[in-house]
Amino acid sequence: MKIGIVGLGLIGGSIAKDLKDIGHEIIGFDRNKDHENKALELDLVSECLSLENLVQQCEAVFVSIPVGHTGDTIIELLNIKGINTTIIDTASTKKSICEKVNKHPQRHRYVACHPLAGTEFSGPTAAINNLYKGKKNIICEEHLSDEPSLDRAIDLMSQLGMQNIFMDPNQHDKHMAYVSHLSHVSAFALSTAVLNIEEDQKQIFNLASTGFESTVRLAKSSPQTWSSIFADNSDHLVTALDSYILQLQELKTAIQDKNEDALKTKIKASNEIKRVLTGMKHNVVRLS
Amino acid sequence: MKIGIVGLGLIGGSIAKDLKDIGHEIIGFDRNKDHENKALELDLVSECLSLENLVQQCEAVFVSIPVGHTGDTIIELLNIKGINTTIIDTASTKKSICEKVNKHPQRHRYVACHPLAGTEFSGPTAAINNLYKGKKNIICEEHLSDEPSLDRAIDLMSQLGMQNIFMDPNQHDKHMAYVSHLSHVSAFALSTAVLNIEEDQKQIFNLASTGFESTVRLAKSSPQTWSSIFADNSDHLVTALDSYILQLQELKTAIQDKNEDALKTKIKASNEIKRVLTGMKHNVVRLS
Repeated sequence: MKIGIVGLGLIGGSIAKDLKDIGHEIIGFDRNKDHENKALELDLVSECLSLENLVQQCEAVFVSIPVGHTGDTIIELLNIKGINTTIIDTASTKKSICEKVNKHPQRHRYVACHPLAGTEFSGPTAAINNLYKGKKNIICEEHLSDEPSLDRAIDLMSQLGMQNIFMDPNQHDKHMAYVSHLSHVSAFALSTAVLNIEEDQKQIFNLASTGFESTVRLAKSSPQTWSSIFADNSDHLVTALDSYILQLQELKTAIQDKNEDALKTKIKASNEIKRVLTGMKHNVVRLS
Repeated sequence: MKIGIVGLGLIGGSIAKDLKDIGHEIIGFDRNKDHENKALELDLVSECLSLENLVQQCEAVFVSIPVGHTGDTIIELLNIKGINTTIIDTASTKKSICEKVNKHPQRHRYVACHPLAGTEFSGPTAAINNLYKGKKNIICEEHLSDEPSLDRAIDLMSQLGMQNIFMDPNQHDKHMAYVSHLSHVSAFALSTAVLNIEEDQKQIFNLASTGFESTVRLAKSSPQTWSSIFADNSDHLVTALDSYILQLQELKTAIQDKNEDALKTKIKASNEIKRVLTGMKHNVVRLS
């Protein structure tokens, strides 16, 4: 199949890499011409074309660009006449994008996706094989996609090794606020708090252990990607942050009071996450 | 050498495991007799004795128990007459313990240590080989230890594969508040905030990615160990938490305002942690 990738960063580049290895022909586009050149050099894509030429030649096009530009780019692609190309996005939020695209007469050729995979790195050089293998792909408002488009999207996601799950876009955004976006805010804040106090960084080198490294890892993530996600999922994320800050304040009170019993109770409750993480590790899927 | 281990959990058990493999004879003690039985069964120690018998037979004794009991146990061991045993602790805070022990006439036989290593697991079954290999050990107030005791402690920590660093106990506790204890508070709060909202946990299974897993990993840590550390390092940790909550509130305001420029600036600043983590990865040591 001839497949287009719009946005040749970590997400789009990793899709390109796997699908190319399977035997598909991959054509790329990126507004950043350095990214196009790098993607060609890394052999992620066989050529780069204009958006219009790309969509005209491909049976399916992935849109993997910052959330804030995704809706407009999907509409731009759906506007191009005389084609039957399936448009699949990979954005980390779904509600505002679905709302934007929903009134388009060609809405049925669009499949709203969010593959739950990523690393803290970005750009074409961050693209890796098997990023998606064993992971889950969320599809929203599947009833608004026509059958050939939905089948094509599910088939391609399955070829990447993903399991497809259907979900309402608003529910998706709400859950993502908790299980993904909040972790990122938490890591960014932790990084800055520590960098602010450790004026010359050398004590962090010397003293930080793997626990700190793990907790702060996501603070390496891309400013462009995450500022766009945070702004788009503002309402749910602010609610999630409020709950999080409340938990921190309760812990702070117990720490201030040196109340070890209260601390033990709170830590025990948070230990419950073990069961969830064990489920993740064994890739247990319990659909609602 | 005959070495005693008081507290047969993750920390003490892992010390026992490595030192036993090197050829030392290891004797154990734990107030929890189930831990003693498990440690014997796992062959972490060759026998378990009373505190008094243990200290009388050993050249060096490690104390690896919750922070809140460490000072009293060190004093109990130093009180035992007619011996020349070196007492080494491994507690995660140092100021209050050093203060407690400093007036003891046998203070010179004590070496205040904090090996910077651990996992989120606990108990004798969590003990692993090479936990300390390539890590750093902080020694506080080394001038208050006599030369044979200090030499013995440094030698044993080196045998575990650790590099020894000297540091003032108050400075130690302050830095630890930022680069270790704060990460734990952050993970405990994140876990509880997510568990509270995701009422039946199945959506977390389905939707959480490795980013969440990494950020929340420390929330699996022991209630007893961490309630004791938090209470003991209360002052520094509350200051650290205040900075952290301030960062979160600033990010929250930018998210609420959908201010992508402000978010980009803040995320870029927090990306600076990359350099620190790269330094850690390459085990760069820059001493002050």
